[in-house]
Amino acid sequence: MTEPNIDGKLAEEFAVPAHVEEVKTRMAEFARCHASEGRRVVVITSGGTKVPLESRTVRFLDNFSSGRRGASSAEYFIEAGYAVIFLHRHRSLYPYSRMFSTVNILDALQLQTREQGEDEVVVNQEVLPNIYKVLKRFQEVKESRLLLPIEFSALSEYLHLLKATAQAVSTIEMPEHKIQSSNGPLQLSLNMVPKILSPLVKDWAPQAFVISFKLETDASILLDKAKRALDTYRHQAVVANVLDSRRGYVVVVTPDSAVELLLTDEDVKQDIEIEERIVSNLTSAHQKFIDQV
Amino acid sequence: MTEPNIDGKLAEEFAVPAHVEEVKTRMAEFARCHASEGRRVVVITSGGTKVPLESRTVRFLDNFSSGRRGASSAEYFIEAGYAVIFLHRHRSLYPYSRMFSTVNILDALQLQTREQGEDEVVVNQEVLPNIYKVLKRFQEVKESRLLLPIEFSALSEYLHLLKATAQAVSTIEMPEHKIQSSNGPLQLSLNMVPKILSPLVKDWAPQAFVISFKLETDASILLDKAKRALDTYRHQAVVANVLDSRRGYVVVVTPDSAVELLLTDEDVKQDIEIEERIVSNLTSAHQKFIDQV
Repeated sequence: MTEPNIDGKLAEEFAVPAHVEEVKTRMAEFARCHASEGRRVVVITSGGTKVPLESRTVRFLDNFSSGRRGASSAEYFIEAGYAVIFLHRHRSLYPYSRMFSTVNILDALQLQTREQGEDEVVVNQEVLPNIYKVLKRFQEVKESRLLLPIEFSALSEYLHLLKATAQAVSTIEMPEHKIQSSNGPLQLSLNMVPKILSPLVKDWAPQAFVISFKLETDASILLDKAKRALDTYRHQAVVANVLDSRRGYVVVVTPDSAVELLLTDEDVKQDIEIEERIVSNLTSAHQKFIDQV
Repeated sequence: MTEPNIDGKLAEEFAVPAHVEEVKTRMAEFARCHASEGRRVVVITSGGTKVPLESRTVRFLDNFSSGRRGASSAEYFIEAGYAVIFLHRHRSLYPYSRMFSTVNILDALQLQTREQGEDEVVVNQEVLPNIYKVLKRFQEVKESRLLLPIEFSALSEYLHLLKATAQAVSTIEMPEHKIQSSNGPLQLSLNMVPKILSPLVKDWAPQAFVISFKLETDASILLDKAKRALDTYRHQAVVANVLDSRRGYVVVVTPDSAVELLLTDEDVKQDIEIEERIVSNLTSAHQKFIDQV
Protein backbone atom coordinates (compact mmCIF):
# COMPACT_ATOMS: atom_id res chain seq x y z
CA MET A 1 0.00 0.00 0.00
CA THR A 2 1.19 3.48 -0.73
CA GLU A 3 1.28 6.32 1.75
CA PRO A 4 -1.76 8.54 1.61
CA ASN A 5 -1.11 11.81 -0.17
CA ILE A 6 -1.02 14.26 2.73
CA ASP A 7 -0.49 17.17 0.40
CA GLY A 8 -3.72 16.37 -1.39
CA LYS A 9 -5.51 15.68 1.86
CA LEU A 10 -4.25 18.97 3.28
CA ALA A 11 -5.72 20.91 0.41
CA GLU A 12 -8.92 18.88 0.49
CA GLU A 13 -9.70 18.79 4.17
CA PHE A 14 -8.24 21.96 5.54
CA ALA A 15 -8.50 25.40 4.05
CA VAL A 16 -5.20 27.30 4.15
CA PRO A 17 -5.31 29.70 7.10
CA ALA A 18 -5.28 33.32 5.91
CA HIS A 19 -2.01 34.26 7.59
CA VAL A 20 0.10 31.41 6.17
CA GLU A 21 1.40 33.38 3.18
CA GLU A 22 2.45 36.31 5.34
CA VAL A 23 4.15 34.01 7.85
CA LYS A 24 5.91 32.19 5.01
CA THR A 25 7.33 35.46 3.74
CA ARG A 26 8.63 36.32 7.20
CA MET A 27 10.21 32.88 7.58
CA ALA A 28 11.88 33.03 4.18
CA GLU A 29 13.25 36.48 5.00
CA PHE A 30 14.49 35.21 8.37
CA ALA A 31 16.19 32.18 6.79
CA ARG A 32 17.68 34.21 3.94
CA CYS A 33 19.08 36.82 6.30
CA HIS A 34 20.77 34.29 8.58
CA ALA A 35 22.04 32.17 5.69
CA SER A 36 23.68 35.24 4.18
CA GLU A 37 25.67 35.51 7.40
CA GLY A 38 26.58 31.82 7.22
CA ARG A 39 24.35 30.93 10.14
CA ARG A 40 22.54 27.62 10.15
CA VAL A 41 18.79 27.54 10.65
CA VAL A 42 16.83 25.01 12.68
CA VAL A 43 13.07 24.62 12.63
CA ILE A 44 11.65 23.32 15.91
CA THR A 45 8.04 22.27 16.21
CA SER A 46 6.89 22.14 19.80
CA GLY A 47 3.95 21.82 22.13
CA GLY A 48 1.78 19.01 20.81
CA THR A 49 -1.02 19.27 18.35
CA LYS A 50 -4.73 19.61 18.88
CA VAL A 51 -6.98 17.66 16.58
CA PRO A 52 -10.50 19.05 16.35
CA LEU A 53 -13.08 16.31 16.83
CA GLU A 54 -15.91 18.40 15.38
CA SER A 55 -15.74 21.19 12.89
CA ARG A 56 -16.64 23.89 15.40
CA THR A 57 -15.19 22.27 18.32
CA VAL A 58 -15.09 22.31 22.09
CA ARG A 59 -13.23 19.01 22.47
CA PHE A 60 -9.86 18.00 21.17
CA LEU A 61 -7.77 14.91 20.80
CA ASP A 62 -4.55 16.16 22.27
CA ASN A 63 -0.91 15.13 22.38
CA PHE A 64 0.79 15.14 25.69
CA SER A 65 3.31 17.97 25.64
CA SER A 66 4.01 21.04 27.71
CA GLY A 67 6.58 22.10 25.13
CA ARG A 68 9.40 21.99 27.68
CA ARG A 69 11.77 20.01 25.46
CA GLY A 70 11.11 22.20 22.43
CA ALA A 71 11.60 25.41 24.39
CA SER A 72 14.83 24.33 26.05
CA SER A 73 16.20 22.85 22.81
CA ALA A 74 15.62 26.21 21.12
CA GLU A 75 17.84 27.88 23.74
CA TYR A 76 20.63 25.34 23.30
CA PHE A 77 20.52 25.61 19.49
CA ILE A 78 20.90 29.37 19.79
CA GLU A 79 23.90 28.88 22.09
CA ALA A 80 25.32 26.50 19.44
CA GLY A 81 25.15 29.27 16.83
CA TYR A 82 21.91 28.45 15.09
CA ALA A 83 19.00 30.72 14.24
CA VAL A 84 15.72 29.15 15.37
CA ILE A 85 12.26 29.10 13.84
CA PHE A 86 10.10 28.05 16.78
CA LEU A 87 6.81 26.67 15.50
CA HIS A 88 4.91 26.17 18.72
CA ARG A 89 1.45 25.62 19.97
CA HIS A 90 -0.48 28.41 21.62
CA ARG A 91 0.16 28.45 25.40
CA SER A 92 2.94 25.86 25.27
CA LEU A 93 6.25 26.67 26.96
CA TYR A 94 8.46 29.25 25.35
CA PRO A 95 12.25 29.66 25.25
CA TYR A 96 13.65 31.60 28.23
CA SER A 97 10.23 32.28 29.80
CA ARG A 98 9.81 28.54 30.44
CA MET A 99 11.34 29.09 33.88
CA PHE A 100 8.06 30.70 34.94
CA SER A 101 6.07 27.53 34.33
CA THR A 102 6.80 26.23 37.82
CA VAL A 103 5.91 29.36 39.78
CA ASN A 104 2.94 31.65 40.02
CA ILE A 105 4.55 34.79 38.65
CA LEU A 106 2.71 36.95 41.21
CA ASP A 107 4.49 35.06 43.99
CA ALA A 108 7.77 36.26 42.49
CA LEU A 109 6.82 39.95 42.37
CA GLN A 110 7.15 42.59 45.06
CA LEU A 111 5.65 46.05 45.45
CA GLN A 112 8.32 48.64 46.02
CA THR A 113 7.77 52.23 47.09
CA ARG A 114 10.46 54.55 45.81
CA GLU A 115 11.38 57.77 47.58
CA GLN A 116 11.41 59.51 44.25
CA GLY A 117 9.28 58.69 41.27
CA GLU A 118 6.71 55.99 40.62
CA ASP A 119 6.00 52.96 42.75
CA GLU A 120 7.53 49.91 41.15
CA VAL A 121 6.93 46.21 40.84
CA VAL A 122 10.17 44.29 41.23
CA VAL A 123 11.07 40.63 40.71
CA ASN A 124 12.15 38.87 43.90
CA GLN A 125 15.42 37.27 42.85
CA GLU A 126 15.28 34.88 45.75
CA VAL A 127 12.23 33.27 44.15
CA LEU A 128 13.70 33.40 40.63
CA PRO A 129 17.48 33.31 41.14
CA ASN A 130 18.29 33.11 37.43
CA ILE A 131 15.97 35.84 36.21
CA TYR A 132 18.61 38.54 35.65
CA LYS A 133 20.79 36.27 33.52
CA VAL A 134 17.88 34.77 31.62
CA LEU A 135 16.25 38.13 30.89
CA LYS A 136 19.58 39.52 29.69
CA ARG A 137 20.05 36.58 27.31
CA PHE A 138 16.43 36.83 26.13
CA GLN A 139 16.90 40.50 25.29
CA GLU A 140 20.16 39.83 23.39
CA VAL A 141 18.50 37.06 21.40
CA LYS A 142 15.55 39.33 20.61
CA GLU A 143 17.86 42.16 19.59
CA SER A 144 19.86 39.94 17.22
CA ARG A 145 16.70 38.30 15.88
CA LEU A 146 17.96 34.78 16.43
CA LEU A 147 14.51 33.47 17.34
CA LEU A 148 11.43 33.58 15.13
CA PRO A 149 8.40 32.38 17.09
CA ILE A 150 5.42 31.17 15.05
CA GLU A 151 2.29 30.12 16.91
CA PHE A 152 -0.36 27.59 15.93
CA SER A 153 -3.55 26.31 17.56
CA ALA A 154 -5.31 23.70 15.45
CA LEU A 155 -3.83 20.78 13.55
CA SER A 156 -4.69 22.26 10.15
CA GLU A 157 -2.84 25.44 11.03
CA TYR A 158 0.14 23.42 12.20
CA LEU A 159 0.28 21.35 9.02
CA HIS A 160 0.07 24.31 6.68
CA LEU A 161 2.59 26.30 8.68
CA LEU A 162 4.99 23.34 8.81
CA LYS A 163 4.79 22.94 5.05
CA ALA A 164 5.31 26.67 4.58
CA THR A 165 8.28 26.63 6.97
CA ALA A 166 9.92 23.72 5.21
CA GLN A 167 9.49 25.38 1.84
CA ALA A 168 10.65 28.76 3.10
CA VAL A 169 13.89 27.42 4.56
CA SER A 170 14.53 24.93 1.76
CA THR A 171 14.72 27.50 -0.95
CA ILE A 172 17.40 29.63 0.67
CA GLU A 173 20.00 30.71 -1.86
CA MET A 174 23.27 30.17 -0.13
CA PRO A 175 26.32 32.41 -0.61
CA GLU A 176 28.42 31.20 -3.54
CA HIS A 177 31.27 29.78 -1.51
CA LYS A 178 28.92 27.25 0.01
CA ILE A 179 27.31 24.39 -1.75
CA GLN A 180 23.59 24.91 -1.49
CA SER A 181 22.59 21.32 -1.00
CA SER A 182 25.12 20.79 1.74
CA ASN A 183 23.89 23.43 4.10
CA GLY A 184 20.26 22.54 4.33
CA PRO A 185 18.35 23.52 7.40
CA LEU A 186 17.97 21.36 10.46
CA GLN A 187 14.39 20.27 10.91
CA LEU A 188 13.70 19.23 14.48
CA SER A 189 10.19 17.99 14.79
CA LEU A 190 8.93 17.23 18.24
CA ASN A 191 5.45 15.79 18.58
CA MET A 192 5.17 15.35 14.86
CA VAL A 193 1.97 13.95 13.45
CA PRO A 194 3.60 10.77 12.08
CA LYS A 195 2.27 10.76 8.55
CA ILE A 196 3.47 14.29 7.97
CA LEU A 197 7.09 13.10 8.06
CA SER A 198 6.69 11.50 4.67
CA PRO A 199 5.90 14.61 2.59
CA LEU A 200 8.29 16.65 4.74
CA VAL A 201 11.26 14.42 3.93
CA LYS A 202 10.32 13.65 0.33
CA ASP A 203 8.77 16.85 -0.96
CA TRP A 204 8.85 19.84 1.33
CA ALA A 205 12.43 19.80 2.59
CA PRO A 206 14.37 17.05 0.78
CA GLN A 207 17.76 18.63 1.60
CA ALA A 208 17.09 19.11 5.28
CA PHE A 209 18.46 17.10 8.15
CA VAL A 210 15.22 15.90 9.68
CA ILE A 211 14.88 14.65 13.25
CA SER A 212 11.72 13.20 14.73
CA PHE A 213 10.92 12.33 18.33
CA LYS A 214 9.47 9.13 19.62
CA LEU A 215 7.91 8.90 23.05
CA GLU A 216 6.98 5.43 24.24
CA THR A 217 5.78 4.04 27.52
CA ASP A 218 7.46 0.67 26.95
CA ALA A 219 11.29 0.76 26.90
CA SER A 220 11.64 -2.69 25.33
CA ILE A 221 10.21 -1.67 21.96
CA LEU A 222 11.83 1.77 21.82
CA LEU A 223 14.83 1.02 19.61
CA ASP A 224 12.84 -1.18 17.30
CA LYS A 225 10.20 1.51 16.80
CA ALA A 226 12.85 4.17 16.16
CA LYS A 227 14.58 2.02 13.53
CA ARG A 228 11.27 1.25 11.86
CA ALA A 229 10.48 4.97 11.67
CA LEU A 230 13.82 5.64 9.97
CA ASP A 231 13.14 2.80 7.49
CA THR A 232 9.69 4.12 6.72
CA TYR A 233 10.32 7.84 6.45
CA ARG A 234 13.98 7.86 5.37
CA HIS A 235 14.89 10.82 7.51
CA GLN A 236 18.15 11.30 9.40
CA ALA A 237 17.53 10.73 13.11
CA VAL A 238 15.05 9.73 15.77
CA VAL A 239 15.37 10.91 19.35
CA ALA A 240 13.71 8.09 21.27
CA ASN A 241 12.68 8.17 24.88
CA VAL A 242 10.48 6.58 27.48
CA LEU A 243 7.79 8.60 29.26
CA ASP A 244 9.02 7.97 32.81
CA SER A 245 12.68 8.70 32.17
CA ARG A 246 12.44 11.33 29.43
CA ARG A 247 14.10 14.06 31.48
CA GLY A 248 17.24 12.03 32.03
CA TYR A 249 17.66 9.48 29.23
CA VAL A 250 17.26 9.39 25.44
CA VAL A 251 18.66 7.37 22.58
CA VAL A 252 19.60 9.18 19.39
CA VAL A 253 19.05 6.68 16.63
CA THR A 254 20.38 7.13 13.09
CA PRO A 255 20.44 4.56 10.25
CA ASP A 256 23.88 3.34 11.39
CA SER A 257 24.08 4.20 15.07
CA ALA A 258 22.27 4.38 18.38
CA VAL A 259 23.81 6.68 20.97
CA GLU A 260 22.54 6.72 24.53
CA LEU A 261 22.53 10.07 26.32
CA LEU A 262 22.15 9.94 30.06
CA LEU A 263 22.18 12.41 32.92
CA THR A 264 23.99 11.22 36.04
CA ASP A 265 22.79 12.19 39.51
CA GLU A 266 25.68 14.64 39.59
CA ASP A 267 24.49 16.22 36.31
CA VAL A 268 21.01 16.62 37.71
CA LYS A 269 22.39 18.26 40.87
CA GLN A 270 24.17 20.79 38.66
CA ASP A 271 20.93 21.58 36.82
CA ILE A 272 22.24 20.17 33.56
CA GLU A 273 19.40 19.47 31.16
CA ILE A 274 19.27 16.48 28.83
CA GLU A 275 18.37 18.85 25.98
CA GLU A 276 21.90 20.32 26.13
CA ARG A 277 23.27 16.84 25.39
CA ILE A 278 20.67 16.15 22.71
CA VAL A 279 21.39 19.41 20.90
CA SER A 280 25.14 18.85 21.13
CA ASN A 281 24.71 15.40 19.61
CA LEU A 282 22.40 16.66 16.86
CA THR A 283 24.54 19.62 15.82
CA SER A 284 27.52 17.24 15.45
CA ALA A 285 25.41 14.89 13.37
CA HIS A 286 24.22 17.82 11.28
CA GLN A 287 27.85 18.89 10.69
CA LYS A 288 28.74 15.34 9.59
CA PHE A 289 25.70 15.30 7.29
CA ILE A 290 26.85 18.54 5.69
CA ASP A 291 30.44 17.30 5.31
CA GLN A 292 29.34 14.05 3.68
CA VAL A 293 27.18 15.53 0.95
CA MET B 1 -32.64 3.17 32.69
CA THR B 2 -30.97 4.28 35.88
CA GLU B 3 -27.95 6.51 36.12
CA PRO B 4 -24.68 4.63 36.41
CA ASN B 5 -23.31 4.62 39.92
CA ILE B 6 -20.40 7.02 39.61
CA ASP B 7 -19.38 6.50 43.18
CA GLY B 8 -18.98 2.80 42.58
CA LYS B 9 -17.28 3.41 39.25
CA LEU B 10 -14.91 5.86 40.88
CA ALA B 11 -13.79 3.31 43.43
CA GLU B 12 -13.58 0.57 40.82
CA GLU B 13 -11.82 2.31 37.99
CA PHE B 14 -9.65 4.89 39.63
CA ALA B 15 -7.50 4.41 42.69
CA VAL B 16 -7.77 7.31 45.13
CA PRO B 17 -4.74 9.56 44.61
CA ALA B 18 -2.50 9.55 47.68
CA HIS B 19 -2.84 13.24 48.47
CA VAL B 20 -6.66 13.37 48.50
CA GLU B 21 -7.01 12.83 52.25
CA GLU B 22 -4.50 15.54 53.06
CA VAL B 23 -6.16 17.97 50.62
CA LYS B 24 -9.56 17.13 52.10
CA THR B 25 -8.33 18.03 55.58
CA ARG B 26 -7.00 21.37 54.31
CA MET B 27 -10.29 22.13 52.55
CA ALA B 28 -12.38 21.24 55.59
CA GLU B 29 -10.17 23.45 57.76
CA PHE B 30 -10.48 26.28 55.21
CA ALA B 31 -14.28 25.98 55.07
CA ARG B 32 -14.64 25.67 58.86
CA CYS B 33 -12.48 28.71 59.47
CA HIS B 34 -14.39 30.95 57.04
CA ALA B 35 -17.78 29.64 58.15
CA SER B 36 -16.91 30.51 61.75
CA GLU B 37 -16.50 34.10 60.57
CA GLY B 38 -19.84 33.95 58.75
CA ARG B 39 -18.19 33.96 55.35
CA ARG B 40 -19.73 31.96 52.54
CA VAL B 41 -17.64 29.46 50.63
CA VAL B 42 -17.74 28.79 46.90
CA VAL B 43 -16.07 25.87 45.17
CA ILE B 44 -15.04 26.64 41.60
CA THR B 45 -13.83 23.92 39.26
CA SER B 46 -11.92 25.31 36.34
CA GLY B 47 -9.71 24.53 33.39
CA GLY B 48 -11.23 21.55 31.62
CA THR B 49 -10.54 17.93 32.31
CA LYS B 50 -8.15 15.56 30.66
CA VAL B 51 -9.39 12.05 30.04
CA PRO B 52 -6.60 9.52 29.65
CA LEU B 53 -7.11 7.37 26.55
CA GLU B 54 -4.65 4.73 27.73
CA SER B 55 -3.67 3.82 31.24
CA ARG B 56 -0.17 5.26 30.95
CA THR B 57 -0.95 7.86 28.50
CA VAL B 58 0.55 10.29 26.08
CA ARG B 59 -2.75 11.32 24.48
CA PHE B 60 -5.81 12.84 26.05
CA LEU B 61 -9.36 13.59 25.18
CA ASP B 62 -9.53 17.16 26.29
CA ASN B 63 -12.15 19.78 27.05
CA PHE B 64 -11.70 23.17 25.53
CA SER B 65 -10.93 25.55 28.36
CA SER B 66 -8.15 27.94 29.20
CA GLY B 67 -9.72 28.46 32.61
CA ARG B 68 -10.27 32.16 31.98
CA ARG B 69 -13.88 32.13 33.19
CA GLY B 70 -13.07 30.16 36.32
CA ALA B 71 -10.12 32.38 37.21
CA SER B 72 -11.99 35.65 36.74
CA SER B 73 -15.10 34.32 38.54
CA ALA B 74 -12.91 33.47 41.53
CA GLU B 75 -11.80 37.10 41.72
CA TYR B 76 -15.37 38.42 41.56
CA PHE B 77 -16.57 35.98 44.23
CA ILE B 78 -13.81 37.18 46.53
CA GLU B 79 -14.87 40.80 45.89
CA ALA B 80 -18.43 39.72 46.74
CA GLY B 81 -17.26 38.49 50.15
CA TYR B 82 -16.86 34.77 49.51
CA ALA B 83 -13.95 32.51 50.32
CA VAL B 84 -12.99 30.47 47.25
CA ILE B 85 -11.79 26.89 46.85
CA PHE B 86 -10.32 26.93 43.35
CA LEU B 87 -10.12 23.39 42.01
CA HIS B 88 -8.25 23.92 38.78
CA ARG B 89 -6.37 22.01 36.19
CA HIS B 90 -2.59 22.15 36.06
CA ARG B 91 -1.44 25.01 33.81
CA SER B 92 -4.90 26.54 33.40
CA LEU B 93 -5.36 30.24 34.12
CA TYR B 94 -5.20 31.38 37.71
CA PRO B 95 -6.93 34.23 39.57
CA TYR B 96 -5.02 37.52 39.35
CA SER B 97 -2.11 36.10 37.35
CA ARG B 98 -4.46 35.46 34.40
CA MET B 99 -3.49 38.90 33.04
CA PHE B 100 -0.13 37.39 32.04
CA SER B 101 -1.73 34.91 29.66
CA THR B 102 -1.68 37.40 26.78
CA VAL B 103 1.92 38.55 27.09
CA ASN B 104 5.31 36.90 27.20
CA ILE B 105 6.28 37.87 30.73
CA LEU B 106 9.89 38.51 29.65
CA ASP B 107 8.63 41.22 27.29
CA ALA B 108 7.20 42.98 30.34
CA LEU B 109 10.44 42.91 32.37
CA GLN B 110 13.32 45.37 32.36
CA LEU B 111 16.86 45.15 33.68
CA GLN B 112 17.64 48.04 35.98
CA THR B 113 21.03 49.02 37.28
CA ARG B 114 20.86 50.71 40.68
CA GLU B 115 23.50 53.14 41.88
CA GLN B 116 23.46 51.40 45.21
CA GLY B 117 22.82 47.76 45.87
CA GLU B 118 21.87 44.90 43.59
CA ASP B 119 20.82 45.12 39.97
CA GLU B 120 17.09 44.66 39.73
CA VAL B 121 14.50 43.28 37.39
CA VAL B 122 11.49 45.58 37.20
CA VAL B 123 8.05 45.21 35.60
CA ASN B 124 7.43 47.69 32.78
CA GLN B 125 4.09 49.17 33.78
CA GLU B 126 3.49 50.42 30.27
CA VAL B 127 3.27 46.79 29.13
CA LEU B 128 1.19 45.73 32.17
CA PRO B 129 -0.66 48.88 33.26
CA ASN B 130 -2.70 47.11 35.97
CA ILE B 131 0.10 45.14 37.57
CA TYR B 132 0.53 47.29 40.68
CA LYS B 133 -3.17 47.16 41.56
CA VAL B 134 -3.53 43.47 40.73
CA LEU B 135 -0.43 42.44 42.69
CA LYS B 136 -1.60 44.46 45.69
CA ARG B 137 -4.98 42.73 45.65
CA PHE B 138 -3.35 39.32 45.14
CA GLN B 139 -1.17 39.86 48.18
CA GLU B 140 -4.13 40.97 50.34
CA VAL B 141 -6.13 37.91 49.28
CA LYS B 142 -3.16 35.65 50.03
CA GLU B 143 -2.64 37.29 53.42
CA SER B 144 -6.30 36.86 54.41
CA ARG B 145 -6.37 33.30 53.02
CA LEU B 146 -9.49 33.90 50.96
CA LEU B 147 -8.31 31.64 48.14
CA LEU B 148 -7.47 27.96 48.45
CA PRO B 149 -6.03 26.69 45.16
CA ILE B 150 -6.17 22.93 44.56
CA GLU B 151 -4.59 21.57 41.40
CA PHE B 152 -5.49 18.47 39.39
CA SER B 153 -4.15 16.87 36.21
CA ALA B 154 -6.01 13.72 35.27
CA LEU B 155 -9.73 13.05 35.32
CA SER B 156 -9.49 10.54 38.15
CA GLU B 157 -7.71 13.10 40.30
CA TYR B 158 -10.35 15.69 39.47
CA LEU B 159 -13.24 13.37 40.35
CA HIS B 160 -11.79 12.30 43.68
CA LEU B 161 -10.83 15.84 44.62
CA LEU B 162 -14.29 17.14 43.66
CA LYS B 163 -15.94 14.53 45.82
CA ALA B 164 -13.56 15.35 48.68
CA THR B 165 -14.24 19.07 48.26
CA ALA B 166 -17.98 18.62 48.29
CA GLN B 167 -17.81 16.48 51.40
CA ALA B 168 -15.38 18.80 53.14
CA VAL B 169 -17.52 21.90 52.63
CA SER B 170 -20.85 20.12 53.20
CA THR B 171 -20.04 19.00 56.69
CA ILE B 172 -19.19 22.44 58.02
CA GLU B 173 -20.69 22.98 61.44
CA MET B 174 -22.14 26.43 61.25
CA PRO B 175 -22.22 28.85 64.21
CA GLU B 176 -25.37 28.32 66.29
CA HIS B 177 -27.19 31.44 65.20
CA LYS B 178 -27.29 30.17 61.66
CA ILE B 179 -29.27 27.24 60.40
CA GLN B 180 -26.80 24.77 59.01
CA SER B 181 -28.82 23.64 56.04
CA SER B 182 -29.54 27.19 54.93
CA ASN B 183 -25.97 28.29 54.51
CA GLY B 184 -24.65 25.54 52.35
CA PRO B 185 -21.71 26.26 50.12
CA LEU B 186 -21.95 27.51 46.57
CA GLN B 187 -20.72 24.93 44.13
CA LEU B 188 -19.77 26.47 40.82
CA SER B 189 -18.75 23.81 38.38
CA LEU B 190 -17.31 24.92 35.10
CA ASN B 191 -16.48 22.25 32.57
CA MET B 192 -18.07 19.59 34.67
CA VAL B 193 -18.00 16.04 33.43
CA PRO B 194 -21.80 15.76 33.04
CA LYS B 195 -22.45 12.52 34.84
CA ILE B 196 -20.65 13.73 37.93
CA LEU B 197 -23.41 16.26 38.58
CA SER B 198 -25.73 13.51 39.69
CA PRO B 199 -23.77 12.20 42.71
CA LEU B 200 -22.66 15.74 43.52
CA VAL B 201 -26.23 17.01 43.86
CA LYS B 202 -27.72 13.88 45.40
CA ASP B 203 -24.98 12.51 47.62
CA TRP B 204 -21.87 14.61 48.01
CA ALA B 205 -23.29 18.09 48.60
CA PRO B 206 -27.10 17.86 48.87
CA GLN B 207 -27.36 21.21 50.69
CA ALA B 208 -25.21 23.13 48.27
CA PHE B 209 -26.35 25.60 45.65
CA VAL B 210 -24.94 23.92 42.56
CA ILE B 211 -24.34 25.68 39.25
CA SER B 212 -23.19 23.98 36.08
CA PHE B 213 -22.02 25.51 32.83
CA LYS B 214 -23.20 24.63 29.37
CA LEU B 215 -21.22 25.60 26.31
CA GLU B 216 -22.87 24.98 22.96
CA THR B 217 -22.02 25.89 19.41
CA ASP B 218 -25.69 26.12 18.38
CA ALA B 219 -27.64 28.97 20.02
CA SER B 220 -31.06 27.59 19.07
CA ILE B 221 -30.82 24.56 21.37
CA LEU B 222 -29.14 26.36 24.27
CA LEU B 223 -32.13 27.05 26.49
CA ASP B 224 -33.66 23.67 25.85
CA LYS B 225 -30.43 21.90 26.80
CA ALA B 226 -30.06 23.99 29.95
CA LYS B 227 -33.62 23.19 31.07
CA ARG B 228 -33.11 19.53 30.36
CA ALA B 229 -29.94 19.52 32.49
CA LEU B 230 -31.88 21.08 35.40
CA ASP B 231 -34.62 18.46 35.00
CA THR B 232 -32.10 15.63 34.95
CA TYR B 233 -29.72 16.64 37.69
CA ARG B 234 -32.04 18.69 39.92
CA HIS B 235 -29.44 21.32 40.70
CA GLN B 236 -30.06 25.04 41.06
CA ALA B 237 -28.74 26.84 37.99
CA VAL B 238 -27.15 26.47 34.58
CA VAL B 239 -25.05 29.21 33.05
CA ALA B 240 -25.56 28.64 29.35
CA ASN B 241 -23.54 30.18 26.56
CA VAL B 242 -22.57 29.87 22.94
CA LEU B 243 -18.94 29.37 21.90
CA ASP B 244 -18.69 32.42 19.63
CA SER B 245 -20.32 34.90 22.01
CA ARG B 246 -19.28 33.49 25.38
CA ARG B 247 -17.28 36.54 26.39
CA GLY B 248 -20.27 38.87 26.04
CA TYR B 249 -23.49 36.92 26.48
CA VAL B 250 -24.81 34.22 28.80
CA VAL B 251 -28.20 33.04 30.02
CA VAL B 252 -28.54 32.07 33.66
CA VAL B 253 -31.24 29.40 33.72
CA THR B 254 -32.97 28.26 36.93
CA PRO B 255 -36.03 26.00 37.24
CA ASP B 256 -38.33 29.05 37.12
CA SER B 257 -36.35 31.73 35.28
CA ALA B 258 -33.98 32.49 32.44
CA VAL B 259 -32.06 35.74 32.75
CA GLU B 260 -29.97 37.04 29.89
CA LEU B 261 -26.74 38.82 30.78
CA LEU B 262 -25.18 40.89 28.04
CA LEU B 263 -22.21 43.20 27.69
CA THR B 264 -22.85 46.30 25.59
CA ASP B 265 -20.15 47.80 23.38
CA GLU B 266 -19.79 50.49 26.03
CA ASP B 267 -19.23 47.82 28.73
CA VAL B 268 -16.55 46.17 26.63
CA LYS B 269 -14.80 49.53 26.10
CA GLN B 270 -14.68 49.96 29.87
CA ASP B 271 -13.10 46.49 30.28
CA ILE B 272 -16.13 45.16 32.11
CA GLU B 273 -16.11 41.37 32.13
CA ILE B 274 -19.19 39.21 31.78
CA GLU B 275 -18.03 37.19 34.81
CA GLU B 276 -18.73 40.21 37.04
CA ARG B 277 -22.38 40.08 35.92
CA ILE B 278 -22.56 36.31 36.23
CA VAL B 279 -21.17 36.33 39.76
CA SER B 280 -23.48 39.17 40.78
CA ASN B 281 -26.46 37.22 39.47
CA LEU B 282 -25.36 34.00 41.16
CA THR B 283 -24.63 35.52 44.57
CA SER B 284 -28.15 37.05 44.55
CA ALA B 285 -29.64 33.69 43.61
CA HIS B 286 -27.59 32.04 46.36
CA GLN B 287 -28.92 34.58 48.88
CA LYS B 288 -32.49 33.86 47.76
CA PHE B 289 -31.81 30.13 48.04
CA ILE B 290 -30.59 30.59 51.61
CA ASP B 291 -33.58 32.79 52.54
CA GLN B 292 -36.08 30.29 51.15
CA VAL B 293 -34.85 27.22 53.00
